[in-house]
Amino acid sequence: MALIPPPATRVGDTLGTIATPSLLIDLDAFDANLAAMAAFAARHGVALRPHAKAHKSSAIARRQIDAGAVGVCCQKLSEAYPFAAAGIESIHISNEFVGADKLAMAVELAAHVRLSVCVDALPQVTALGEAAARAGVTIDVLPEVDAGQRRCGVTSEDALFALVDAIAAQSALRFAGIQAYHGGAQHIADWHARRAEAHRAAERAGNFVCKLEARGIQSAIVTGGGTGTVEFDATSGVYTELQAGSYLFMDGDYGHIAWDGALRWRHSLFVLSTIMSATRPGLAVCDVGLKGLAVDSGLPRRVHRPDLSIEPTLTYVAANDEHGMLEVQGSLHDETNALLGERILLPPGHCDPTVNLYDQYVCFRGERVVDVWPIDARGLSR
Amino acid sequence: MALIPPPATRVGDTLGTIATPSLLIDLDAFDANLAAMAAFAARHGVALRPHAKAHKSSAIARRQIDAGAVGVCCQKLSEAYPFAAAGIESIHISNEFVGADKLAMAVELAAHVRLSVCVDALPQVTALGEAAARAGVTIDVLPEVDAGQRRCGVTSEDALFALVDAIAAQSALRFAGIQAYHGGAQHIADWHARRAEAHRAAERAGNFVCKLEARGIQSAIVTGGGTGTVEFDATSGVYTELQAGSYLFMDGDYGHIAWDGALRWRHSLFVLSTIMSATRPGLAVCDVGLKGLAVDSGLPRRVHRPDLSIEPTLTYVAANDEHGMLEVQGSLHDETNALLGERILLPPGHCDPTVNLYDQYVCFRGERVVDVWPIDARGLSR
Repeated sequence: MALIPPPATRVGDTLGTIATPSLLIDLDAFDANLAAMAAFAARHGVALRPHAKAHKSSAIARRQIDAGAVGVCCQKLSEAYPFAAAGIESIHISNEFVGADKLAMAVELAAHVRLSVCVDALPQVTALGEAAARAGVTIDVLPEVDAGQRRCGVTSEDALFALVDAIAAQSALRFAGIQAYHGGAQHIADWHARRAEAHRAAERAGNFVCKLEARGIQSAIVTGGGTGTVEFDATSGVYTELQAGSYLFMDGDYGHIAWDGALRWRHSLFVLSTIMSATRPGLAVCDVGLKGLAVDSGLPRRVHRPDLSIEPTLTYVAANDEHGMLEVQGSLHDETNALLGERILLPPGHCDPTVNLYDQYVCFRGERVVDVWPIDARGLSR
Repeated sequence: MALIPPPATRVGDTLGTIATPSLLIDLDAFDANLAAMAAFAARHGVALRPHAKAHKSSAIARRQIDAGAVGVCCQKLSEAYPFAAAGIESIHISNEFVGADKLAMAVELAAHVRLSVCVDALPQVTALGEAAARAGVTIDVLPEVDAGQRRCGVTSEDALFALVDAIAAQSALRFAGIQAYHGGAQHIADWHARRAEAHRAAERAGNFVCKLEARGIQSAIVTGGGTGTVEFDATSGVYTELQAGSYLFMDGDYGHIAWDGALRWRHSLFVLSTIMSATRPGLAVCDVGLKGLAVDSGLPRRVHRPDLSIEPTLTYVAANDEHGMLEVQGSLHDETNALLGERILLPPGHCDPTVNLYDQYVCFRGERVVDVWPIDARGLSR
């Protein structure tokens, strides 16, 4: 018998028996988010290509496609493999890449799926075109333009024209449109300021589209947008495709920005944890820290009870590698020992890198585990 | 043929061909650290039980045991499985745990290895004793005392006595000594202040040992200490066993504290990354961000060239999920495009949670890959 840790749970188990820490999805909230975004995109006549970097799970991608998504985005080439293997037919790599290791993956993927990728420099185009031609595959290419993020993407129309010309010169590449993603706009807390920044991003993207049209080049796809700006992107008249990902889960970072528009997303992602030490008045220690919660966007802002109600007397105040420190207020302050063995649910500060720490989602409805989904792209960052 | 990403590298390859991002070990530096700590512990007549949470790899644990370590520490029960499966015979769980899922793992592990665990509350002792008796196994138990960390561990001699008595009342449990770990002392930047805090921790631990002796109870093991305080712990006359882990790798957090004593550790752990976009003067973007570098203790403080020399013109200034932003100074500032495709080595800010993001170490000497070690306890946080 192989000596491996027992499974964390089985379908049909109650929440009270799941091994901790585990990453949980409240399927009622998840389903509501999934359906709401699909309906929103359909209503506005824009394609939805959700970002799979948020969930890294082909089981979830399949549900998004079944609800009307045209395919998925991946941020890295290796990340695309489990989605391709699971039969997702259209994958967009929303990122630039350089190097022989990357070209080998791109042409292998392109032999199995309709692959599109981003470029923002001529050497990327040449290398990809030559590799694709050698492999006998065709790859759709979307130059990335800088829509305000100041990260990747070309900043001038001349640079964009040069890329489009270089793509045209490669028989194995096909110009498919442009990518204009503005990550910095997503988390602007004030709704009106966020809307204004999203409008500026769309304006920049639209300007690049017009400049291409003036040269007789149509951008079939203008892809971008994220959970924070999707309501503005969809009505911009510029974007044809939305890349939102976090809407399925929400997280602390998105949860605390203002949502003044029609869209509301529910928190569906939680880390289940157990209080395993409580020797000091006012302090309890739970079994999830840095290795089970990404803290780059802050600690969990609330502590929930297993019935999802908020536990007002506990505050997650610090994360060590495998310990979470909980400040205890109220009547339990002097009797923290009474908390030993209690289970809590923590909404992660940032969903994407938290998901990347786990190998599976434990999906529940009410009190029961109803499904377990592998996070099959976990760790695939190449 | 299964559609899975190709291997990142093969033994014999040069550094220039490794797929990025990858987690690299400079084996010359690693071997020096491994040997230096083994010699240090032997010289001072204390047992070395390195903390496997730092490396999460049975291949590394095996090398530590071969160099004289008495066993390993794990922070979680599930983490111990790959070490037990690999034949490591003595494993200490340096942490408290509560719950049926944990008890099941404890008794299964105890059937395969000499297992010791920590407790700091009576219900933990009772539950463990009953589970061990039912399973027909014996488990060594070390009550944890608070040595100044203010996290887990009992704070009074009465609480310690109660635990020792409860252990004695369980036929399947054996009192083996105490754990006194002071994590807060490890990273104090000033060497003298760190030494003073380590002395206070040893004094607290020694006081608990004396109080037990006054009741006729011998603490065969007093375990604790970490990379930052090991030089003080070893000569304290209190600690019989050292739990240091990070010494193998070093990281930004340990690298920037003062090392005024005889011990010096070399940076052996690096993330290899490729610059994949550089469209703006003064900015280059590399392919590793939050999903390949833990940032809880800060960003990489330096950028190295593939020959390990420091690249003074590049500074890693921000991490997005899969992007690293590099500020470019000097002559390359206006010609960042020239950096496209360049490879860099980044020493992580915090080694433990960075290691937990990868499935393997790529071990190199000079220009060549000489080994690949699985990180077989990656993600095992239960």
